[in-house]
Amino acid sequence: MPKLLLLAQNPDQYLTLFHAALPELEIITAPAADCELAFGDPSLLKDAVPHLPNLKWIQSTWAGVEPLLNPALPRNYILTNARGVFGPLMSEYVFGYLLLHERNILQHVESQKQNRWNGMLTGTLRGKTIGLMGVGSIGAHVAGTAKHFGMTVHGFTRASEDCADVDAYFHADLPAFAAGLDYLVNILPNTRETRQLIDASVLAALPAHALFVNVGRGSAVDEPALAAALDEGRLRGAVLDVFQQEPLPPGHVFWRTPNLLITSHTAAPSFPKDLAALFVKNYRRFVSGQPLKYQVDFERGY
Amino acid sequence: MPKLLLLAQNPDQYLTLFHAALPELEIITAPAADCELAFGDPSLLKDAVPHLPNLKWIQSTWAGVEPLLNPALPRNYILTNARGVFGPLMSEYVFGYLLLHERNILQHVESQKQNRWNGMLTGTLRGKTIGLMGVGSIGAHVAGTAKHFGMTVHGFTRASEDCADVDAYFHADLPAFAAGLDYLVNILPNTRETRQLIDASVLAALPAHALFVNVGRGSAVDEPALAAALDEGRLRGAVLDVFQQEPLPPGHVFWRTPNLLITSHTAAPSFPKDLAALFVKNYRRFVSGQPLKYQVDFERGY
Repeated sequence: MPKLLLLAQNPDQYLTLFHAALPELEIITAPAADCELAFGDPSLLKDAVPHLPNLKWIQSTWAGVEPLLNPALPRNYILTNARGVFGPLMSEYVFGYLLLHERNILQHVESQKQNRWNGMLTGTLRGKTIGLMGVGSIGAHVAGTAKHFGMTVHGFTRASEDCADVDAYFHADLPAFAAGLDYLVNILPNTRETRQLIDASVLAALPAHALFVNVGRGSAVDEPALAAALDEGRLRGAVLDVFQQEPLPPGHVFWRTPNLLITSHTAAPSFPKDLAALFVKNYRRFVSGQPLKYQVDFERGY
Repeated sequence: MPKLLLLAQNPDQYLTLFHAALPELEIITAPAADCELAFGDPSLLKDAVPHLPNLKWIQSTWAGVEPLLNPALPRNYILTNARGVFGPLMSEYVFGYLLLHERNILQHVESQKQNRWNGMLTGTLRGKTIGLMGVGSIGAHVAGTAKHFGMTVHGFTRASEDCADVDAYFHADLPAFAAGLDYLVNILPNTRETRQLIDASVLAALPAHALFVNVGRGSAVDEPALAAALDEGRLRGAVLDVFQQEPLPPGHVFWRTPNLLITSHTAAPSFPKDLAALFVKNYRRFVSGQPLKYQVDFERGY
């Protein structure tokens, strides 16, 4: 009977879901030498990996798998991440905040507190340009939502140009990409190449009315440069779900930066139902000897 | 040379747009006996109509045309309203507020004011059921956006069943329609048949976790019954853009009703560019003798 190590935030929900779908699976919650399969959160799995000498496959519940990419950890197994499930959730987050901004929702809430009928006209997403840094499965979904709302979509990728909802691709000149945008959304994973990519030069290239949204990784942003741009009114606003240090430390400049909205790395929650379904599909491929979906390249980092 | 009476909130923008597109048109801003065409806001046009004995056609900048439906006013002309332009704008409003609710955006804003990292998980639109009262051109667009976000769509109409994005239609039993919803959105126009349609029985049928959004007309709602349902926690929340009296009077119970968000009849702003384009198209049909688009039935009221 195959043995699966389960290390996730909601073990009981996963146990119920796995027992129902895969009754043949023996599920354990602490590493065992003969265990070949593992499922869960990279932050929890990283300490277990050295104690799994027969590990063949890990299915991550996250899209980003940084904790398992530590070069000190073994890499002699197949690592698959969670893809396909986060695109719709990320789109909800991104467009929730884009509409909050465009429709002046917080201003209306404030007017209401003062019992004031606020007849200000609002803007619209239609005709605006959104720039996506990273157009993988999440970016492609965000691009589709942007098209639904009548936006023009620019994409910044290393080389790929395979999303039909992207109107124009950019690969090298990030300031040129930034210059034409109303909204800049970072979806890039944390790799050597994405670190500090959104620096003072990119922020200076963005139009002053632009809004920056980060749902990728905090490492992509020069945080002091972003705080300065917002402080000096050179940028309309920012919505950040990810930070170089999480939780955001109490003394961090972002807590006192104007026109900045902070959320807590919750843009795309890992719903057990979604992740269990993804595992079950990949598990069926595993037992039938088919190549697994969503394999991570340890060198590339995603 | 055909004469057009222009009575709208932004006359200068329309003048520029009309001059550019239709240089042959003489545009006047006060009624004249020989004027056959009028364009503008129904609230401004209603006083002009009795002074336009040769009126052949009015193009309204609004979707709802109540001020021109007053039985004391002449009806011996073709009245066309604005359709097709408000669907995308209404969708932005509706989904801005649905995502505000589902993603706990206001709670995150409050946490941030207290410098507090709020790790609460959020909900998702995916899998939720939205009920649309009214599935005309606006409702159809909202239905399409709901489908994009993975929702189930129920539609309440008098008889029509022609929107492919509606999963189930209801025509008679409004409480039965309400009972299965996570979100109820009213888009109905103000007619004799829609008045007070959303009454205590409908509100009682809605699940307690449901959110009610009104972008149709305030006349459709029993306002004291809605205030009571929110006050007693029998309904999760409401977002209202329209009211029986606008602006909402200072003493109105809604100013002190909990879990209620108020906006000022601005869900679908009339952007001159959109409305001028719509007029120009209909005008070309008018001069070439083709039937006009978006004709209003004075008896039906829309």
